[in-house]
Amino acid sequence: MKALVYGGPGSRSWTEIPDPVIRDPRDAVIRVDAVTICGTDLHILGGDVPAVEPGRVLGHEAVGTVVEVGSGVAGLAPGDRVLASCISACGICRYCRDGAYGQCLGGGGWILGHRVDGVQAELARIPFADLSTYKLPDQVSDEAAVLLADILPTSYEVGVLNGGVRPGDTVAIVGAGPIGLAAVLTARLYSPAHVIVIDKAESRLQAAKLFGADITVLAGTEDPLAAVRSVTGGLGADVVIEAVGTPQTFELCATLVRAGGHLANVGVHGKPVTLHLEDLWIRNVTITTGLVDTYSTPKLLDMLVAGQLDLGHMVTHRFGIGDFMQAYDVFADPARTGALKVVLSR
Amino acid sequence: MKALVYGGPGSRSWTEIPDPVIRDPRDAVIRVDAVTICGTDLHILGGDVPAVEPGRVLGHEAVGTVVEVGSGVAGLAPGDRVLASCISACGICRYCRDGAYGQCLGGGGWILGHRVDGVQAELARIPFADLSTYKLPDQVSDEAAVLLADILPTSYEVGVLNGGVRPGDTVAIVGAGPIGLAAVLTARLYSPAHVIVIDKAESRLQAAKLFGADITVLAGTEDPLAAVRSVTGGLGADVVIEAVGTPQTFELCATLVRAGGHLANVGVHGKPVTLHLEDLWIRNVTITTGLVDTYSTPKLLDMLVAGQLDLGHMVTHRFGIGDFMQAYDVFADPARTGALKVVLSR
Repeated sequence: MKALVYGGPGSRSWTEIPDPVIRDPRDAVIRVDAVTICGTDLHILGGDVPAVEPGRVLGHEAVGTVVEVGSGVAGLAPGDRVLASCISACGICRYCRDGAYGQCLGGGGWILGHRVDGVQAELARIPFADLSTYKLPDQVSDEAAVLLADILPTSYEVGVLNGGVRPGDTVAIVGAGPIGLAAVLTARLYSPAHVIVIDKAESRLQAAKLFGADITVLAGTEDPLAAVRSVTGGLGADVVIEAVGTPQTFELCATLVRAGGHLANVGVHGKPVTLHLEDLWIRNVTITTGLVDTYSTPKLLDMLVAGQLDLGHMVTHRFGIGDFMQAYDVFADPARTGALKVVLSR
Repeated sequence: MKALVYGGPGSRSWTEIPDPVIRDPRDAVIRVDAVTICGTDLHILGGDVPAVEPGRVLGHEAVGTVVEVGSGVAGLAPGDRVLASCISACGICRYCRDGAYGQCLGGGGWILGHRVDGVQAELARIPFADLSTYKLPDQVSDEAAVLLADILPTSYEVGVLNGGVRPGDTVAIVGAGPIGLAAVLTARLYSPAHVIVIDKAESRLQAAKLFGADITVLAGTEDPLAAVRSVTGGLGADVVIEAVGTPQTFELCATLVRAGGHLANVGVHGKPVTLHLEDLWIRNVTITTGLVDTYSTPKLLDMLVAGQLDLGHMVTHRFGIGDFMQAYDVFADPARTGALKVVLSR
């Protein structure tokens, strides 16, 4: 089969490799029908995730059809159409038993395209297949489902639910890439009074409005703190969601949150940040971090079926599955291409 | 009357000043019967709290007898024996209406000995007297009650309750001063499996054992991380409570918390800290900060009456109320004196 293989920092190729096989009774092999690229894949290509070794097939977001299952797989059969989630779960360790699948101690967690070969390929082996996939209802398209492999549950669980968004809140979201936009969409489920989105790209702020932001702030030109204060009686945002992953954006978030408010970090960080505890110690602020656990994925699928999640503006570019090299080029240069999510399908 | 007056950094005097008077209908004046000194007062004397102006009477922890009430005070009368809490509350602003009295926007919050004259005096004016005092049951001694003016509710609310201690948890507490010890005592209310206390003074670790710590770690000699890992299967503590207020101790706390765990900051910080988000972003950690709101004070008084809180080891030195200069000398040098809390009484 062909797969997108990481060759070390800066190097990727769409190349022929051996077909995946069942290695463990709990494995399944799927035919990949739709797959996307994540910002994290760009971090890997940038050399920021040293656990990823050259030769690794990238990718952790796909929809596929089950081809083969191991003898220990109870809930899947060849022909089943499934979502292959970014989080695999052994189901047995103490974190899995507590629903914290992202922290799996039994060999799961975020492993696809990281510690084992991923799904940017024609075929993929899915470890712990029963707990790492979700059977898809007929009403849900491949393109919509693939957005539930990572970005929707990540923004919802790590941003909106960890942040504790409540009706009437003012929610500030820093960063309007796919994660930030999914946070706008899922924050709206809790009926906030205002969703304020801050980004440095006007095109992304326009997208944020399509997803439900009522106030946008062009970073570098407009003042985010003034915008947040103007609608909160000077207090600051009830919930601030960090959806970029740099010290500057995190530290901006810490200035936007009100006393008693919540800063939910979703961004992937590669560097330490400065936390101004000399100001924050007295302000009853809660800061959360997190890798998605995907406990919300079944409910997000229900919401897709019920028509509660309009993902129509998220996919900006579509490719055939053999066009991975070009798709990466488009996704990696959003300032030029306007790319949000790119989807590759059979 | 006489009062302990701040004269600028490094300067304090027990000196004659005019008696306090009712200035607002919601004020009361109390005769101070028992009063203590807080580590925060030492921070003020160190010049770390510039909002405190020279001439200010210090102190925010007292038990007293009501002498006079303003026309707007509904629940107190002369002769009532009351706890004067570190937190005053207007009762009207949006934070007060939400129980977040420490964040009061109406002129309350932590004001005694900070923005208005405090209680290290023979008499004291208590603003918003109805909501800033608690009538004391006869069974509760002055000495026990005065420990509920600040340290008990602070450790309980900002440490134990914000930290979400649950039965069976491993709780690590960094710092065994009065706040850390009160955190040990109130963490025990939730039946943790282990309470591990880390401090650099052996005498304070001995005190921690009296309050219920089952494991102590002498910082600088023993390895806190190894101690925490040894009883948690290598995972780290479920809840870590920071009870010192330095970058080093906060950053130590961040290494002790398990994935999915909680770091509750109680310490008063004067400097920024480094937050290693490059490690923490993926670990589902919650960090909380807070000034006490004192919403728990009535329940803590109930627990005192019910015999659930043994505070017998907290007060190490007792003085007459005229001995403030000496009491400060003792409290400020715990390495020499072994002081935890010092109480001055009539």
